Amino acid sequence: MDANELANRVAHEMLAGEGTGPSWGIKIEEAREGYARLSMTVRADMLNSHKIAHGGMIFALADTAFAYICNGANHASVAAQASMVFLDKVSEGETLIAEGEQVAREGRAGVTRVAVRTADGRAVAEFTGYSRTIGGAVIS
Amino acid sequence: MDANELANRVAHEMLAGEGTGPSWGIKIEEAREGYARLSMTVRADMLNSHKIAHGGMIFALADTAFAYICNGANHASVAAQASMVFLDKVSEGETLIAEGEQVAREGRAGVTRVAVRTADGRAVAEFTGYSRTIGGAVIS
Amino acid sequence: MDANELANRVAHEMLAGEGTGPSWGIKIEEAREGYARLSMTVRADMLNSHKIAHGGMIFALADTAFAYICNGANHASVAAQASMVFLDKVSEGETLIAEGEQVAREGRAGVTRVAVRTADGRAVAEFTGYSRTIGGAVIS
Amino acid sequence: MDANELANRVAHEMLAGEGTGPSWGIKIEEAREGYARLSMTVRADMLNSHKIAHGGMIFALADTAFAYICNGANHASVAAQASMVFLDKVSEGETLIAEGEQVAREGRAGVTRVAVRTADGRAVAEFTGYSRTIGGAVIS
Repeated sequence: MDANELANRVAHEMLAGEGTGPSWGIKIEEAREGYARLSMTVRADMLNSHKIAHGGMIFALADTAFAYICNGANHASVAAQASMVFLDKVSEGETLIAEGEQVAREGRAGVTRVAVRTADGRAVAEFTGYSRTIGGAVIS
Repeated sequence: MDANELANRVAHEMLAGEGTGPSWGIKIEEAREGYARLSMTVRADMLNSHKIAHGGMIFALADTAFAYICNGANHASVAAQASMVFLDKVSEGETLIAEGEQVAREGRAGVTRVAVRTADGRAVAEFTGYSRTIGGAVIS
Repeated sequence: MDANELANRVAHEMLAGEGTGPSWGIKIEEAREGYARLSMTVRADMLNSHKIAHGGMIFALADTAFAYICNGANHASVAAQASMVFLDKVSEGETLIAEGEQVAREGRAGVTRVAVRTADGRAVAEFTGYSRTIGGAVIS
Repeated sequence: MDANELANRVAHEMLAGEGTGPSWGIKIEEAREGYARLSMTVRADMLNSHKIAHGGMIFALADTAFAYICNGANHASVAAQASMVFLDKVSEGETLIAEGEQVAREGRAGVTRVAVRTADGRAVAEFTGYSRTIGGAVIS
């Protein structure tokens, strides 16, 4: 299996095996080596009291893309730290696209950047995740 | 109403008016001026594919505490940026406690720090949120 | 003057007018709209007690690139927040290259990412900066 | 030697052995287990082109406190990631105080928070550092 096929299979098996992604309606639009693009439509149960998407849900979407990307070579990896800048608000019913890629690796450490935009291209948030490979496989 | 009563009322009205907190089973253990302590029990739909709490949910809990704290004076505020260090994994059924306080303010900007621990005191994550006051009231 | 020329002129005037860049031996390799690439050679007075480049100096180099980029349209901007992941150590005499670009803008807010590498291409650090435009010109 | 004496000795030996601290005029006001407070007076060569303290120098001061704190038990530790929120500007001649403490530890990981204020108490910046212990002693 080549690196792109492997990364795609890891992402789909992670989504199928987790509680969060299916509960949040996350879809994998594309997954390949070092890259993933996910979508999620904002529902009423994802809104804060200002009736806009909760920052925690925007982060959770980006963090999901980060997890698929940093595990994509099938070496189990965990998030050590992550940071997000919030740029614009999002309404119920809007679809968010999280597009990420791994931008650096050194030893066990990796850095993945994820841009979150609305389906019509508004910049919503920018995420940076720092991962560490802990060993072991993700899928068999 | 004094500052502590106001902050407590803001937190409870925010929780009642949002889609996320009730969906996630978030409880306010204490809320006063510049401080909040929340709890949330990790459910199956909050787990990642390694069967531990998804980082996005741990962040979402801390971000919720951050929102209650930075809006506690009833001046509407938004998250501009937030960062989390992940320290330990959490299993289904464990209860997380997010305890936060605002540590600095200058003009419209504020910094709030939230520690996430298990109910038995294990350090799970450390969150730092940067808020900006945008004006207007949160509750009437 | 076109946007690339303006950004280049802003960067050079900022470097000439600041105390830090000349003291640290920072050179502008290239500056254009939304982009800058700087170099700095690590000196003995930039080392920590382990005799490797101090993290603060690696950050300071990236932060300098960030400043030139977010002011490049000649609208005065300030750093609101910044974050760095440290990936590898650097020895005295090595030359660091900081290459950055603005990856998102929304209203007064912008996000700039800067990769720091050695001249021979080792990944040293990844920086993310969040800027806010405050109004006024940088150069006349 | 008790833990507070050890931390104090580590901090002073680190400062004496590094290129940066003496060059920047950093002074150790207090260092004990899990805690350090440093001072640094802003000089002309620390200013940016707006004639205020460069963000990189404010970060470098906080990062120095972070280094002393996370090495204070004499187990060599390195910065894996750090983040700073910038709150106010600082003029030439002002003295900055960086006061930090380690707020969480789990295995090899630690989180240290550092507040930077002016000598008269203005909030300047808030720093969060994530360290990893790599083994070996810092001082003999």
